[in-house]
Amino acid sequence: MKKVYKGNILFTKEKDRFEILGNGYVAVDDNGRVTGVAKDLAALDCDGAEVRDFGDCLLIPAMNDLHVHASQYRNQGLAMDLELLPWLTRYTFPEETRYADTQYAERMYRRFVRDLWRFGTMRACVFATIHTESTRLLMRLFKEAGMGAFVGKVGMNRNCPEALKEPVEEMVSGYESLLKEDTASGLVRPIITPRFIPSCTREMLQACGELAAKYQCPVQSHLSENKAEIMMVRELEPESTCYGDAYDRYGLFGQTPTVMAHCVWTEGEELELMQRRGVTVAHCPTSNFNVASGMAPIRTLLNAGLRIGLGSDISGGHDLSIFRMMVYAIQVSKMHYQQHHTQAFLTLSEAFWMATKVGGSFFGRVGSFEPGYEFDALVIDDSDLNHSNYSLLERLERYIYLGDDRHIRHRFCRGKEIEVKELRS
Amino acid sequence: MKKVYKGNILFTKEKDRFEILGNGYVAVDDNGRVTGVAKDLAALDCDGAEVRDFGDCLLIPAMNDLHVHASQYRNQGLAMDLELLPWLTRYTFPEETRYADTQYAERMYRRFVRDLWRFGTMRACVFATIHTESTRLLMRLFKEAGMGAFVGKVGMNRNCPEALKEPVEEMVSGYESLLKEDTASGLVRPIITPRFIPSCTREMLQACGELAAKYQCPVQSHLSENKAEIMMVRELEPESTCYGDAYDRYGLFGQTPTVMAHCVWTEGEELELMQRRGVTVAHCPTSNFNVASGMAPIRTLLNAGLRIGLGSDISGGHDLSIFRMMVYAIQVSKMHYQQHHTQAFLTLSEAFWMATKVGGSFFGRVGSFEPGYEFDALVIDDSDLNHSNYSLLERLERYIYLGDDRHIRHRFCRGKEIEVKELRS
Repeated sequence: MKKVYKGNILFTKEKDRFEILGNGYVAVDDNGRVTGVAKDLAALDCDGAEVRDFGDCLLIPAMNDLHVHASQYRNQGLAMDLELLPWLTRYTFPEETRYADTQYAERMYRRFVRDLWRFGTMRACVFATIHTESTRLLMRLFKEAGMGAFVGKVGMNRNCPEALKEPVEEMVSGYESLLKEDTASGLVRPIITPRFIPSCTREMLQACGELAAKYQCPVQSHLSENKAEIMMVRELEPESTCYGDAYDRYGLFGQTPTVMAHCVWTEGEELELMQRRGVTVAHCPTSNFNVASGMAPIRTLLNAGLRIGLGSDISGGHDLSIFRMMVYAIQVSKMHYQQHHTQAFLTLSEAFWMATKVGGSFFGRVGSFEPGYEFDALVIDDSDLNHSNYSLLERLERYIYLGDDRHIRHRFCRGKEIEVKELRS
Repeated sequence: MKKVYKGNILFTKEKDRFEILGNGYVAVDDNGRVTGVAKDLAALDCDGAEVRDFGDCLLIPAMNDLHVHASQYRNQGLAMDLELLPWLTRYTFPEETRYADTQYAERMYRRFVRDLWRFGTMRACVFATIHTESTRLLMRLFKEAGMGAFVGKVGMNRNCPEALKEPVEEMVSGYESLLKEDTASGLVRPIITPRFIPSCTREMLQACGELAAKYQCPVQSHLSENKAEIMMVRELEPESTCYGDAYDRYGLFGQTPTVMAHCVWTEGEELELMQRRGVTVAHCPTSNFNVASGMAPIRTLLNAGLRIGLGSDISGGHDLSIFRMMVYAIQVSKMHYQQHHTQAFLTLSEAFWMATKVGGSFFGRVGSFEPGYEFDALVIDDSDLNHSNYSLLERLERYIYLGDDRHIRHRFCRGKEIEVKELRS
């Protein structure tokens, strides 16, 4: 039996405009997929279906986070005075070693999943650590919550503390054991995650590429965030023509669905390779600001036809809200606009489309209310912000700029309402 | 009888470091002034004083907002896709005309004052509109709340809609009538507010300067935010050597305490004039991002010895929280750092010092817990953020980056706890 939800519906089919249905209806089938959206219930072929009325609330697609380090949850909002490489060695690596302890991992990961939920993120591409058992735990926590996630057991075996180096064979066997988790629903599954070129020997990269091909798994990593990092990659992989090519040589650059975080300095050959391979960009605007590595040239990347979603990049980024990422993404684009007035800054609809439909596309048909899309949705009660005859679009803009988790009244992932209990820790 | 407050005390005497007293005490006299801070109650000469214990909460100076447009409250979070001048004509001016209606003004201003309170801002330099009666109302609302504010009836009589032009004599008589409000406590008083040079004829500027001198009133305005604006000033005031000089000629640039918002393009002669005159800068970092006029070179201005506080600049800025302004100020400084590695970005203590001690200094001895300072304070319950043995400084950093109004348990202005009732509107 279909379910029908009623509310003020806003979503983006295309990047240049919102679809807006005041007091509209969206119908969802038993598999959690949208069958139609309409102003008029009669148009939806839903005789006898239960209609759940969200009154004057906004009903929008849920958020998708394409790049977030669950294992850096403790460091969120800390150490914002360092650049990328010292930040890794002084804050990030020491914290990640603690995830050998599954009790510690459980305490942090429960909070992390709860916080993703709070901010309305129903799907995420997540970095865990090298540790198989705590990574498994994180997968199970997402499953328990009913939220979607691609969870990365991190591959790394050089240029890091000994405690974070894992032999290649153990990475492979650990990853394969994670594939044995029940992933039938497709909501939660492992993702191949070489940390980044500086952390991985050729053998590690080779093994990652082979795993991706063998099991047809998606891939995530970091790309061209920081100039010092790019120089380091050039030295480590001298025969590669660019940083992206260093992944490509090992089958880690679009041979299976691939998302690369940052792409601040991507241009020329690397940009063309991303186009050809259909590699998705995870744009992490707060991280661009905080880590001071540079600002991703999003208009250039968009014009090149790349798919670009948004990532919170905890803890290089400090904010888990993808709504806040929209604001920051627009602001990053304004920095480019100030320097090159030919590069128009992002519009609100473009930022929303990136956060929903583009980000969601990495997880399947997710991020829109078009027929066939999985119903991932948020019900926003913005009544305290809506005190002055704002239009529906103005209400959404104000929620994006001013709202927070308090305004999110209901959350749905694949048609199911998701309620995450308070922390047990 | 003195009062003593106990908590985890953090404040900045100097820009380079925090004073941190875990489980410390601050003593406050009957006039609401701090008499001492200590780790040991016995050191405070407070025999028999009531001790109010805030447990494990953080106890910090309250926030000061040096630049905010109360009359743009409705537009907060809207119209972020326009540059300064079209934004003024299409959104800002039409909204400000509505403040001729004191009922409308009361509805918005009540919300505005409540929201300042919510986010822990106990003192603000506020732009109202040209309208004397709604400006008076705003002064009274601050007084009723017990919060500190310099409230600006705006002077403007050119380059704007007819409805926002006020004849010079009416501006003068209106301003003088506001001076008749009870301002004995000094907490709430009017401030001379020529909108900016493009909006004011020479007669208007002259009259503003004369009022400031006659009544020894402080002055606020905008300075060098946007290149198009600066060109316009150059055409309108061709004999002035710089934008700042155009104010200076009329006695509006430090002859009485003066705060100028933005100063994005301030350099050379204008910078020197600000140094000589002791003009305070209201740095509005979110506005720098949103309006895309440029980013204030804060390190350069700090090195020049200028006093720089923070402003939310609603509605060019979208966020009323001065804590958020600290984050954005650090981020703006990182943008400069990326371009010129010689310009170190702001540290957390510098941003905090700007938000508290420097911003507060515009209102008197405000913004620190040193003896003689007025006790403006916030009690922050960050227990939900403090789940992992963070140091007190880490807890403050995390609150600044991740916290919100929910964490502010108590607010004090000049020694008095401020409780703002829910909206009546």
